[in-house]
Amino acid sequence: MENALDENERKVTYAYFDHNATTAVDDAVLDAMLPYFQKEFGNPSSRHVHGRVARQAVNSAREQVADSVGVQPAQVVFTGGGSEANNLFIQGGAGYLKPTRVIVSAVEHPCVMRAAQELARNASRKWNLRRLTVDNLGRVNLADVGIAVTEQQPGLVSVMLANNETGVIQDVTAISEQARACGAWMHTDAVQAFGKIPVDFASLKVHAMTLSAHKIHGPKGAAALVIDKRLLLKPLIYGGGHEHGLRSGTENVPAIVGFGVACGLAKSRVAESAIRIAAMRARLEQGLVEMGAVIFGLGALRLPNTCYFALPGIEGDTLVVRLDKAGFAVASGAACSSVNPGQSHVLEAMGVDSALARCAVRVSLGGSNSPIQVENFLKALTSVTEELKRMNMVTL
Amino acid sequence: MENALDENERKVTYAYFDHNATTAVDDAVLDAMLPYFQKEFGNPSSRHVHGRVARQAVNSAREQVADSVGVQPAQVVFTGGGSEANNLFIQGGAGYLKPTRVIVSAVEHPCVMRAAQELARNASRKWNLRRLTVDNLGRVNLADVGIAVTEQQPGLVSVMLANNETGVIQDVTAISEQARACGAWMHTDAVQAFGKIPVDFASLKVHAMTLSAHKIHGPKGAAALVIDKRLLLKPLIYGGGHEHGLRSGTENVPAIVGFGVACGLAKSRVAESAIRIAAMRARLEQGLVEMGAVIFGLGALRLPNTCYFALPGIEGDTLVVRLDKAGFAVASGAACSSVNPGQSHVLEAMGVDSALARCAVRVSLGGSNSPIQVENFLKALTSVTEELKRMNMVTL
Repeated sequence: MENALDENERKVTYAYFDHNATTAVDDAVLDAMLPYFQKEFGNPSSRHVHGRVARQAVNSAREQVADSVGVQPAQVVFTGGGSEANNLFIQGGAGYLKPTRVIVSAVEHPCVMRAAQELARNASRKWNLRRLTVDNLGRVNLADVGIAVTEQQPGLVSVMLANNETGVIQDVTAISEQARACGAWMHTDAVQAFGKIPVDFASLKVHAMTLSAHKIHGPKGAAALVIDKRLLLKPLIYGGGHEHGLRSGTENVPAIVGFGVACGLAKSRVAESAIRIAAMRARLEQGLVEMGAVIFGLGALRLPNTCYFALPGIEGDTLVVRLDKAGFAVASGAACSSVNPGQSHVLEAMGVDSALARCAVRVSLGGSNSPIQVENFLKALTSVTEELKRMNMVTL
Repeated sequence: MENALDENERKVTYAYFDHNATTAVDDAVLDAMLPYFQKEFGNPSSRHVHGRVARQAVNSAREQVADSVGVQPAQVVFTGGGSEANNLFIQGGAGYLKPTRVIVSAVEHPCVMRAAQELARNASRKWNLRRLTVDNLGRVNLADVGIAVTEQQPGLVSVMLANNETGVIQDVTAISEQARACGAWMHTDAVQAFGKIPVDFASLKVHAMTLSAHKIHGPKGAAALVIDKRLLLKPLIYGGGHEHGLRSGTENVPAIVGFGVACGLAKSRVAESAIRIAAMRARLEQGLVEMGAVIFGLGALRLPNTCYFALPGIEGDTLVVRLDKAGFAVASGAACSSVNPGQSHVLEAMGVDSALARCAVRVSLGGSNSPIQVENFLKALTSVTEELKRMNMVTL
C-alpha cells in the first residue's frame, strides 16, 4: 500500500536531486548491456565462441574507459565497485611497500579513510596515518601537504578529486607534485568528479585513480582503478588471475560493457551538461540564499551540480523526509554512508559548527533535471520550511 | 567478419555444454532485474523513496537467497562474486584468528587455494598451509582430514562441496565434524554444487558457505558468503559499512535482485532438472566409453551435469577448438582459470598421468540442453577424432 502511494506520487511530480548518490542507467547503456545477459552470456575465460565474444566485449569496454581519461587500456583494472578500487589502492599499495606514512585528506570518502585507518591499526605492519587539513571552504591546505610529506617519509597519498558532499574540487595536480617529489604513490578518488568535469589522468600527475560506473549513468557493479603500470599492488581478491592478477573473479561482462558506454557518453556530454547544470545550480543557490541558507564550500571551485546547504535551525534529516513527501529526492549526508548515520566528517573538518552541520542538505543535479524542477523545489522548500516553523520544529 | 561467421554458425546448431563456466540469465531473472536499472535505480542507503524501494528489493533478495539454503536472511553477506566471497572467508577469518593452520583440499578452486597460499606467505602473520589429499576419483581422503586436524591446531578449513572440473562431490558434513571437533572454522565453496544438487547450510555443518549467481542462471556480479552469525571476519573492503560492515560499497541492486530470483528458481527446479540432466549425461558417457574415453571421477558421487573425460592421445585444447568450430562449447580446463592455462591441478592431485591430463575435456550440461544435442555431440566428436587421426594429430 505504501509503495502504491509512493508510485502515484512519483508519477506526477517526483524530481530526483540525488545524482551524487547514484544515477539511472542511460538508455544507450542498458541497450548495450542487454545482449550480454542472455545471447552473449559467455565467460571471457572460455576458449569457445561464447567466451571469445565476451572477451572482445570486455576489451572494447576497457578501451572506452581508458579513452575517457586519456590512458592505455592496459592501465584499467576493473573492479566490482568504487569502494573496492579505493581499497585496492590503499591496501594493495600498503601490501607491497614497507610501512611508512599514509596521507589522506580529512574529507575523503569512508572507503579511503577507513582503509587508511586500518593500515594504522595493523599491529605487525603499522603505518602512520596523517590527515590533511582543509580550509573552511573544504579545500585541502596545500601548505599542510608540504608539512605532511616532509615530517615523515610518505608511502601512499590519496586525495579525492571532488568531494561527494560539498562538490569541492581539490588541486590534485599540485598535491601530486608534492607527493611525487617525496617518492610517494599518489592516488585520487575521481568517482564524484568523473562525468561532471573533464578528468585527465596524465594532467593530474597521479599514479592511480578510481572511477565508478553508477555515478555516470552506468550500472552498479562496475568500476575501475586506473594505474600507472609501474605500480605494484597486492590484490584484495586472489584466484584465477584476472585483470593482470590484480582482481580475480569472472568479469561482470554486462556491467563492464555498460561502464564502457557510459564513459563514452560522459566524455561527449560533459562540457555541454556542465554548463546547463551549473545554470540550474546558480538559480537554486540564488533562491536558497534569499531564504537565508548557508551554502557550504561557496567560493571554492566546485562540481557544477552539487549544492550542499543548511537552513539554520531546520534539521537536515527532517527536510529530507518532508521534501521526499513533497516529491524531491535529496540527501542529508553522503548516501553511501548513511547506513552509518552520524555527523558529517566533511563539515566537521571544515570547522562548521555542529548545530549548523545537523541542518545540512545536499542537492545534486543531473542531466535529467530541468529549470522548472528547480523552481518547484524552491517553492516546496519554502512551504515545508513555513510549515515546520508553524509546528515549532525550528530550533532557532 | 569473423564474428559474422561465428554468428551464422551459432544460429544453426551451436550447443552450449559449458554450464560450469557460466550460464545464460533466465528470462524470469532478467525480467526481475530490469526495473532496477532505470525506474527503481536508487541507492539503498538513500532515505528518499528511490532509496527505500531499492533497500526493500535488496531485503527481498536476501530472503530468497537465505531461503534457498535454509538460513536466516541476516546470515547472507552479498559480495561482487564467488572469488570475493571465498577470499572473504579465508582472508577475513585469518584477519581475526591468531595464525595457526589453514587446511584446504588439493582440488580447491584457485580463489580458495591462492588465498590460502597467501596466508602461508605472510611473513609477519604466517599460517601453516596443509593440502588434503584426494583419492584417484578426486574424493578428499577422510583419513587425511583426521591427520591434518590433529598434527597441528587448525584455524580455518575449506573444502568445496563439488569440484568445478570433475563434478565430484565431497563429504563436507563428515569433514565439518572433524574440523569443528578441533575448534576450526569450516567453510565450503558451494558455487558449483548449488543449483545442481540440493544444498542445505545446516546439514553441511559448516560455519560459512559461498554461493554465486552466474552459475545458476543469475547475473554475473552477485554472490554471497553465507555465515554462522557468530563468525568474526575482517572485511576485504572497508568503507560505508554495508553488509553489517563486512563488505562496503553501494549494493549492486539489479544483480542482487536477479540473484534472489535465480535462487528461487534453482531451488524449485533442482530435483527435476537433476534427473533429466543425469539421463543425458549417462547417454553421453556411454557413448564416450564406447569411443575409448577415460572418465575422471567415474564411480565417485558427482554432480549430475558434469562429465570430465579424455580420449587418450588427443589434446584437450585441440578438441575444444575443433568442437567449437563444429558447434559445441566445451572446456579443456576450468574456464575461470584459463587466463592462466596450465595443467589441471585437480587431475594432478588425483594422480592422473600428465600425458592423459593434457587430453582432458569438460562437458557440463544445463537445463537448456537436449538429448538430441548429446547425440549430435557424440557424432561430431567421432568425426573430429577421425579427422585428427587422419591428420596424424593423435599422439598415441
